[in-house]
Amino acid sequence: MADLFWPGDHRARDVLSDEAFLAAMLDVEQAWLAALVAADVAPVRARADLGGLVGPGDLPGLAERAEAGGNPVLPLLALLRSRLGAETDAARWLHRGLTSQDVVDTALVLLARAALDDVATHLGAQVTTLVALVEEHRSTAMTARTLTQHAVPTTFGLVAAGWLGGVLDAHDEVAALGGRTLPAQLGGAAGTLAALGELLAPGHDPLALTTEVATALGLAPAVPWHGVRSPLTRVGDAAVRCTDAWGHVAHDVLTLARPEIAELSEGAGGGSSTMPHKANPVLAVLVRRAALTTPQLAATLHLAAADQVDQRADGAWHAEWATLRDLLRRTCTAASQTADLLAGLRVHPARMAATLEAAGSDVRAEQRSMAALTGRDPRPTYLGATDALVDAVLHRAREVTP
Amino acid sequence: MADLFWPGDHRARDVLSDEAFLAAMLDVEQAWLAALVAADVAPVRARADLGGLVGPGDLPGLAERAEAGGNPVLPLLALLRSRLGAETDAARWLHRGLTSQDVVDTALVLLARAALDDVATHLGAQVTTLVALVEEHRSTAMTARTLTQHAVPTTFGLVAAGWLGGVLDAHDEVAALGGRTLPAQLGGAAGTLAALGELLAPGHDPLALTTEVATALGLAPAVPWHGVRSPLTRVGDAAVRCTDAWGHVAHDVLTLARPEIAELSEGAGGGSSTMPHKANPVLAVLVRRAALTTPQLAATLHLAAADQVDQRADGAWHAEWATLRDLLRRTCTAASQTADLLAGLRVHPARMAATLEAAGSDVRAEQRSMAALTGRDPRPTYLGATDALVDAVLHRAREVTP
Amino acid sequence: MADLFWPGDHRARDVLSDEAFLAAMLDVEQAWLAALVAADVAPVRARADLGGLVGPGDLPGLAERAEAGGNPVLPLLALLRSRLGAETDAARWLHRGLTSQDVVDTALVLLARAALDDVATHLGAQVTTLVALVEEHRSTAMTARTLTQHAVPTTFGLVAAGWLGGVLDAHDEVAALGGRTLPAQLGGAAGTLAALGELLAPGHDPLALTTEVATALGLAPAVPWHGVRSPLTRVGDAAVRCTDAWGHVAHDVLTLARPEIAELSEGAGGGSSTMPHKANPVLAVLVRRAALTTPQLAATLHLAAADQVDQRADGAWHAEWATLRDLLRRTCTAASQTADLLAGLRVHPARMAATLEAAGSDVRAEQRSMAALTGRDPRPTYLGATDALVDAVLHRAREVTP
Amino acid sequence: MADLFWPGDHRARDVLSDEAFLAAMLDVEQAWLAALVAADVAPVRARADLGGLVGPGDLPGLAERAEAGGNPVLPLLALLRSRLGAETDAARWLHRGLTSQDVVDTALVLLARAALDDVATHLGAQVTTLVALVEEHRSTAMTARTLTQHAVPTTFGLVAAGWLGGVLDAHDEVAALGGRTLPAQLGGAAGTLAALGELLAPGHDPLALTTEVATALGLAPAVPWHGVRSPLTRVGDAAVRCTDAWGHVAHDVLTLARPEIAELSEGAGGGSSTMPHKANPVLAVLVRRAALTTPQLAATLHLAAADQVDQRADGAWHAEWATLRDLLRRTCTAASQTADLLAGLRVHPARMAATLEAAGSDVRAEQRSMAALTGRDPRPTYLGATDALVDAVLHRAREVTP
Repeated sequence: MADLFWPGDHRARDVLSDEAFLAAMLDVEQAWLAALVAADVAPVRARADLGGLVGPGDLPGLAERAEAGGNPVLPLLALLRSRLGAETDAARWLHRGLTSQDVVDTALVLLARAALDDVATHLGAQVTTLVALVEEHRSTAMTARTLTQHAVPTTFGLVAAGWLGGVLDAHDEVAALGGRTLPAQLGGAAGTLAALGELLAPGHDPLALTTEVATALGLAPAVPWHGVRSPLTRVGDAAVRCTDAWGHVAHDVLTLARPEIAELSEGAGGGSSTMPHKANPVLAVLVRRAALTTPQLAATLHLAAADQVDQRADGAWHAEWATLRDLLRRTCTAASQTADLLAGLRVHPARMAATLEAAGSDVRAEQRSMAALTGRDPRPTYLGATDALVDAVLHRAREVTP
Repeated sequence: MADLFWPGDHRARDVLSDEAFLAAMLDVEQAWLAALVAADVAPVRARADLGGLVGPGDLPGLAERAEAGGNPVLPLLALLRSRLGAETDAARWLHRGLTSQDVVDTALVLLARAALDDVATHLGAQVTTLVALVEEHRSTAMTARTLTQHAVPTTFGLVAAGWLGGVLDAHDEVAALGGRTLPAQLGGAAGTLAALGELLAPGHDPLALTTEVATALGLAPAVPWHGVRSPLTRVGDAAVRCTDAWGHVAHDVLTLARPEIAELSEGAGGGSSTMPHKANPVLAVLVRRAALTTPQLAATLHLAAADQVDQRADGAWHAEWATLRDLLRRTCTAASQTADLLAGLRVHPARMAATLEAAGSDVRAEQRSMAALTGRDPRPTYLGATDALVDAVLHRAREVTP
Repeated sequence: MADLFWPGDHRARDVLSDEAFLAAMLDVEQAWLAALVAADVAPVRARADLGGLVGPGDLPGLAERAEAGGNPVLPLLALLRSRLGAETDAARWLHRGLTSQDVVDTALVLLARAALDDVATHLGAQVTTLVALVEEHRSTAMTARTLTQHAVPTTFGLVAAGWLGGVLDAHDEVAALGGRTLPAQLGGAAGTLAALGELLAPGHDPLALTTEVATALGLAPAVPWHGVRSPLTRVGDAAVRCTDAWGHVAHDVLTLARPEIAELSEGAGGGSSTMPHKANPVLAVLVRRAALTTPQLAATLHLAAADQVDQRADGAWHAEWATLRDLLRRTCTAASQTADLLAGLRVHPARMAATLEAAGSDVRAEQRSMAALTGRDPRPTYLGATDALVDAVLHRAREVTP
Repeated sequence: MADLFWPGDHRARDVLSDEAFLAAMLDVEQAWLAALVAADVAPVRARADLGGLVGPGDLPGLAERAEAGGNPVLPLLALLRSRLGAETDAARWLHRGLTSQDVVDTALVLLARAALDDVATHLGAQVTTLVALVEEHRSTAMTARTLTQHAVPTTFGLVAAGWLGGVLDAHDEVAALGGRTLPAQLGGAAGTLAALGELLAPGHDPLALTTEVATALGLAPAVPWHGVRSPLTRVGDAAVRCTDAWGHVAHDVLTLARPEIAELSEGAGGGSSTMPHKANPVLAVLVRRAALTTPQLAATLHLAAADQVDQRADGAWHAEWATLRDLLRRTCTAASQTADLLAGLRVHPARMAATLEAAGSDVRAEQRSMAALTGRDPRPTYLGATDALVDAVLHRAREVTP
């Protein structure tokens, strides 16, 4: 997959692609059908390999026919039943006890889990790179800037430790959604599991079956959440906290790589269509781009969550799918781009030193005020607790990637 | 084109599709090359039919290679030059005087114009349908509701006239951007047209050439707007005002089509994957969905506009492309769905009358207060100026679609 | 009025303050009551000076009591009737024929008109300052930057002309809402004017009376727009286009005023609580702040517009008031701050020349490519059409402020 | 405090009021000064009671003077020093080692903690009310609705359990930010603690002092987070997840309280300014209002977090303050309103039964499909696992409020 309107999108590979969505919906139907057979609800003959029945070539037709019922599950079921043979047991038992929203929501959660796993991998790589960068530049003095103006001395190690702190915050959010914490959605027509109850022989527990299916899919069993969209808003918020952290990194790189500052540069700059000399900080540009768009996508997920009504919302549900797709694809792309940006980052300590030197007495003005107050001579450096602060961040990082 | 995550997306056909984006960029390069030849800047041998050189099969590669320079123009030029033959005059003169942003921005404007034309057609159809609906139901009495509760009598004609008023407002916005009002972006590397000036023989006016190219593309000539993004925010705001109007219609339909109210219904409802009896108001659901998402997309365009800096912004520019694409595709889809929704709408006057009857004395409570004040008997009906108000809206509609 | 959380807010004075809201609601009730008397609906004894009856001291109580009915009109009417004397004709005729939404909406429109007038004044001042700046620096050469990197030469005149272009776009939007274009909201309980119809003697036209009231308030007469919120979204969008333009200016100033670049500086910088040497570009910082927040406020207005239902929406209406207040106060504040920022801006041509000199051969690389193509020697300068482009923008500006 | 534009705002009392902001900034300065004395950095004579020196009467002036430096700390320090006497030790030592952002950020965190505590109390009350509602209506059958249409039977107990699930999710988010988890911001001019280091005698640990101050303020010690804004985005996201949950409740109440459905009603409805019979669901309206606005405010916090640059951002920092204020005041107000809405909610089981009866064979259509499949007779009820699901939610609730 690749998107001409979003350079770098191919980095997200098949994360929440149409193909992956189709495959995930098939996984849900497959796991459910298997559970019906295992529970003696459906006969053994109802077993079928759904994955082999439909493929990418079916996507355009499925997408188009999805409009009639408002979601892709109806045409998918029609296609599956027709390919299974309408009179087969598999066709008769397919999807029994489920509702469209179960299939779409559980598929979205499966896709989100894959996306977050991908993001987690990139976050891990970022942490490793940043730890090395922080350690290497623990003593690289540079000028701190506040409100764009020279402030006091700092170290590039501490600046990078600030980036690392943000990345670790993002890591914590993503990790909290890892493993089997994301819930399956298995509730039937209106979240009562009534159809499943009707199918099961008396005395059998519908929740035992839904727990089994959730587990088989690698998800957490859960009370149906058709109208309670916290699972998706948590994913969305975690994604935005990632792009927040990377946007900060990108903004710093873009600023410090300006030719007049030149304290940092991207490993390999991008060219220009008309200016042969240019080396543009392209990765930082593209990461910053993502961070400008994701908060509004997450806001849409919240608006949808707040607009829930009845046992299936009249539009708020449908607004989530493409929003989550765009949000997570952009997050995966930016995750990978940020990892590359950091890995290739070139630091120019001599330039940092030169700026600090040129800033001269100004960046020591605060120190002189303090010395005047204590009556002691100013100390030779003015780097404060940078070392201890760097250590604190590194300590936290090592708990994540030992 | 069709999108499994956004049922109905196929209605937008190739509006801002990858294919259309590629074709539009080719149109820009083609028009520019032709103008260079016409102005005797480039030799006649530099003429070439660019459109035949690349096609949909090139899209995945172009999209992927777009990342290196941050936009799709660089790999497109490389491909064109390679297919033209690197040593040909066409390859040598291609794109000379332009910059990537010229090509992307002008292409986006061409795509936006096509999208708005599509929207305008649907708006026209909506106006026609609504005019008929308003006229037919001018005297169809029903219960007005405020804050969800029964208020006073009104007519369905006036309710539909309210929808029409919103659609006419949207129509005005879109019409104001019609024809040749959208500007081409032709400024060269930093909006100074310096390269073009260098190419032109002394005494020739660069602005004459850019005016020609803009005109050839059906766009307005303009001072380069690399950092002044009003042309795109105007398009975005117009799109959102459309979905505002349609969202209102959809919300009313969804409410009045509830089975307990049943004063309206969709012509053809959508089915359910598990409940055989259901007839869901699918078009209204999908239109409401769009309206929940577009304001945040337009906000992103504004954030990008406000984040401009230098002569080409470092991320804010890049954030616009996919945002505009999603915004306009959703607007086109919702335009078409709303036209269908209105065309198929079924109105149930008997049910309206029954609700009004049942609301009984309550909806006349205000009238009794007024009568008590004047000392006159309450009039037989309590429909106020509904007729005159309906006429006022119809009058306005007839100026649009005589 | 002043807001500790939004430094500079006092510049918006009483624009959409609680006091102004109260006064505007009183204006609406007053104009309506006067019209009832003038139309012989209410007796002459119903005349009263409402403005003198309530004041700022009543605000806390009114605000608190507004919750019970969900809007401030109900407690305001109770207070007015009690102070008029419940048995007086004024008390009996007050508000007859209106509904709460009429009063709130028309008051909001009056407040918006005042805010836009204020913004228009500042926009005019900005245009004047920018015209002078553009003219003065028409030939001040500097380095154009794209994607943060040095590109080609330009002039500060053209850069400022870019700002001016954005400000003129904003000016056009605000001007289009000027004069008497904003509509009054006068529809009664559900927009049918039924109560007014009941009050008027047979044969009298309710629309004549509402037209009179609208005109008396300086607003346009209009079909009731209780559920069609375009008047407010137009105001909101115009406000955001203003902050877009100013955000662009602020971002450029903040970048070019960095000490390493130092091509611009603010007239009077802000100090620091701990660093005695600092001169921070505070106005630019505060303007940029505003531009980061307003797009989301305008998006909320659109979401509210799209969520309309029935003849008065169940929350979407109420969400508009504070949103519009914040959006317009911030716009007024930023308007004034930007005017000051521009008026005090210090331009450093020597520094611009030095940077361009230092960028040396790089910023001429494109020119050499072009010269290689034409076979002619590079021209002495490489400023292209900057002069003609500057003239085009100045021409447009002079149509606005001759 | 009360806001005429946001009815119900008085419920938030002094949460993030100007007065509270001032008091919190004083608390920070006070704790810091005390720590300087305790650490023998400042002399004992530097002790002072800052709280008594300034008050609400100073607010307008402070707010206005905050613009010059871009934040309220500078004029506050000037005022404090002037009232302490410029030559006093307290005036000389006040704020030494801090920077404006330390004071503003730590104050905001203190205010956020108070707001979240307030929200937590209301969430607790909501849980208690909902548990009782769920238990009481465990067997109250009603019609489930999907996409606005009748679906299958459910119970009001399960519907309310869905609300409870959302409220418990919100509770978890708020609880995770409880106690001393929110971090103080104490880093000095650029987060290096250099000034403090200069003030401390050699061998003394700046982090020991900042830990002490954080602890004294009831906050967590932390590495300075001037450019890493996760602490605020976490608060913002938690607030939005609350309003998501309440928006869902409000939307359901508004729908089910429509006169044609009438399965629920608000305990005490709001009146109308012109229609004597009306009883509007005002609390639900006002809660739904809040939920339409908060996601965009949280998005602004994220945009600000992603726009961080240098050691103090040039606008992104300043955009947070009022945004957080509005977000948290609205959350507190909606928390209280939702608690009241739930406490006063009237449930109409007879009406629920009547609708279900009228929906008749339709809501059993799915059941008949299932029975046809199993060959068994349909069971007498079709409520599936509602009981077990209700139990699961109640179990979770009891862990929160035993």
